[in-house]
Amino acid sequence: MTCSSGNELPAINRARLMADLETLATFTEPGTPGTTRRFPSAAYMSGRAWLRERMEAAGLRTSIDAGGNLFAMLPGEHELPPLVAGSHTDSVMGGGRYDGALGVLGALEVARCLAGSGIRLHHPLLVADFLAEEANDFGVSCVGSRSLAYGLAPEWLDRSIAGQTLGQALAAMGGNPAGVTAPLLAPGAFAACLELHIEQGPVLEAAGATLGAVSGIVGIRRGTFILSGRPDHAGTAPMALRHDALTAAAELILAVERCARAEPGAVGTVGRLALRPNQSNVVPGEVTLTAEIRHLEPAAIALVWNYVLEAAEAACAERGVTLQLDAHTDAEPAAPPAWLLELVYSVCHGLDPRALVLPSGAGHDTGHLAHLAPAAMIFVPSMGGRSHCPEEYTAPEHLCTGVEALMRAIIAVDRRLA
Amino acid sequence: MTCSSGNELPAINRARLMADLETLATFTEPGTPGTTRRFPSAAYMSGRAWLRERMEAAGLRTSIDAGGNLFAMLPGEHELPPLVAGSHTDSVMGGGRYDGALGVLGALEVARCLAGSGIRLHHPLLVADFLAEEANDFGVSCVGSRSLAYGLAPEWLDRSIAGQTLGQALAAMGGNPAGVTAPLLAPGAFAACLELHIEQGPVLEAAGATLGAVSGIVGIRRGTFILSGRPDHAGTAPMALRHDALTAAAELILAVERCARAEPGAVGTVGRLALRPNQSNVVPGEVTLTAEIRHLEPAAIALVWNYVLEAAEAACAERGVTLQLDAHTDAEPAAPPAWLLELVYSVCHGLDPRALVLPSGAGHDTGHLAHLAPAAMIFVPSMGGRSHCPEEYTAPEHLCTGVEALMRAIIAVDRRLA
Repeated sequence: MTCSSGNELPAINRARLMADLETLATFTEPGTPGTTRRFPSAAYMSGRAWLRERMEAAGLRTSIDAGGNLFAMLPGEHELPPLVAGSHTDSVMGGGRYDGALGVLGALEVARCLAGSGIRLHHPLLVADFLAEEANDFGVSCVGSRSLAYGLAPEWLDRSIAGQTLGQALAAMGGNPAGVTAPLLAPGAFAACLELHIEQGPVLEAAGATLGAVSGIVGIRRGTFILSGRPDHAGTAPMALRHDALTAAAELILAVERCARAEPGAVGTVGRLALRPNQSNVVPGEVTLTAEIRHLEPAAIALVWNYVLEAAEAACAERGVTLQLDAHTDAEPAAPPAWLLELVYSVCHGLDPRALVLPSGAGHDTGHLAHLAPAAMIFVPSMGGRSHCPEEYTAPEHLCTGVEALMRAIIAVDRRLA
Repeated sequence: MTCSSGNELPAINRARLMADLETLATFTEPGTPGTTRRFPSAAYMSGRAWLRERMEAAGLRTSIDAGGNLFAMLPGEHELPPLVAGSHTDSVMGGGRYDGALGVLGALEVARCLAGSGIRLHHPLLVADFLAEEANDFGVSCVGSRSLAYGLAPEWLDRSIAGQTLGQALAAMGGNPAGVTAPLLAPGAFAACLELHIEQGPVLEAAGATLGAVSGIVGIRRGTFILSGRPDHAGTAPMALRHDALTAAAELILAVERCARAEPGAVGTVGRLALRPNQSNVVPGEVTLTAEIRHLEPAAIALVWNYVLEAAEAACAERGVTLQLDAHTDAEPAAPPAWLLELVYSVCHGLDPRALVLPSGAGHDTGHLAHLAPAAMIFVPSMGGRSHCPEEYTAPEHLCTGVEALMRAIIAVDRRLA
């Protein structure tokens, strides 16, 4: 029941790891599909209370900071900034059991293995469960890791769902809203950060690889476009006299696809669209849609974005439709320093010669932690690339190999920075 | 206060016509914008009761048939099938004051003018208010004219809204549901049918014309398409591995536009569209949309439709998206015989040398009446092409010219068929 590390390293206890993952999955909001532990639900709180007990039972000292982040400390040999390994235990509505949970329970398993072995790290090791990573109705994802790196804007804390503000929800999870309006930590407070996570995409599986070293977390530019034409009778308005907002939108949608395909490493998506009046016999008068472009390089994002804007403007001008960019947000890409990526890839390659270096198209806590310390991620395959759904699955041996890689990376980083 | 006809014909009483139109517009469902007289609302019933009084006050004998159609008879000199002139007095939610109403009150004005003049028609003249022309929640438009020409399917009569069946609604409007399961009339029962209507489109206004002779009512092919791809994470799914239902749908939307533009006389519209899951960070997994093509010639409709199908199938195949045509309905086009179109155009041209011959892209009662008798329509301009909205407007002088043309056409048809 152990994955042998093949050298003097302690062995990951696969049965213990799997049992922890199964148990955490039992904490789920009643009446929802798959695994649902949304911030700030009772299921999420109960799961964390169980996790904290598991941490204490492993002999680790636990704490919750003002940002609601739950930490468990394995002391190191020296007075050094800690290494951090963790992820999150909240989930989307109807999600799977490994997204986030693997990174937290895998880090706990590493700490248990190290504690029970003869190996002593130079740095303290903090096992971390960062608060509320997933998108929520407050409109603030990565609540805990943002608090650490940047603090939270006071107006965010005042946003409310069903009468409860984000600040109140943070307090209910053990945080302190008054303490997070400024960054909780300064760069250098952590020695390095490592996050093990499921890929949530199809790349590793397609390549037959069990491990991936993440070259970076993509930046995202996302905008809401409003295309305003004129609603006309679908029978009486001749083609030449129409101002059809939907045909103009179709050109925008295809421009996003065409240019994202043409730019290596880019993805582009129109995922959300609504039209008015949305009647089969009326020419669409207005379309609202959200388009996003992701890439590791901000310059590549700008290139694709400008191409899409140009194509959309031309399509609208041809049809007498006005184009308005209503909102427009940028998330900066984040990448590990070269030495850390090389170290992580070397560890992965040592366990699986088919290991890949690949970008993360999804956002993660590590994207924020990268402002505090060298930060890297390890991916394990997601079956069929599925994620954020009950069908999300990673084979137990891949989960275990991922935890093995995390342990080796922690030890290697500890030695490198000592 | 009269529009002179410039010869021995009686003069249309513009003040009386406008007063009738204004009064009918006061019958509207409380709390709705513009004019709202939906079948079978109290406002629609009250408006019809007022109309029947106006008909009786003009010395016309009134009746309601099993299809709920309200008729007023001006006797002719001979025992001949009647000429019919009319339209409808129901409206859409938030419609204008002239759609339908002009054709009914205009025909009443013609009957009043003829009754008060020395002119006696060979044929009886039936002023008609056909029941429930507009689309309604029962899913059966043109209830009255369909009853006359085809009868109503028993399953339609059983459809219900808020506990009331279509049959019950028909009975409440003075009809007899048991009597309409077979056609009320056989071809030849009417000598001819004429309908004056607002254009509901921009063509006459754009040409500076005050009258149009309608070359035919277009046929419509309408289908609901379901495009099924796969919902994937918008960040983690590489472009090459996606099955994006919305980009495939965008190609279908543009194919409809492109081919309808290329085929003279065609219009094509995607007016209704929904996508799932409709989240900005998820590749669209499913799109449902309704596409329709209209043209006077069934062969042209089939040509455009098949082109769109081919383009959509190619777009879906390229993306691994499946295309399903869920529902598919055809409305046959209807056109007046050549002699009648020539007659109507000649009348229009006599009143306005800029008069046009143009198709009707919208459906009308005349489309069904054409199965019973030679049937034609006269259009007057709609400002800005607007219709089915409170802003619908036609200038009083254009309304009056339209009624003048209707009178002349009735007299000319009466002489021609005597």
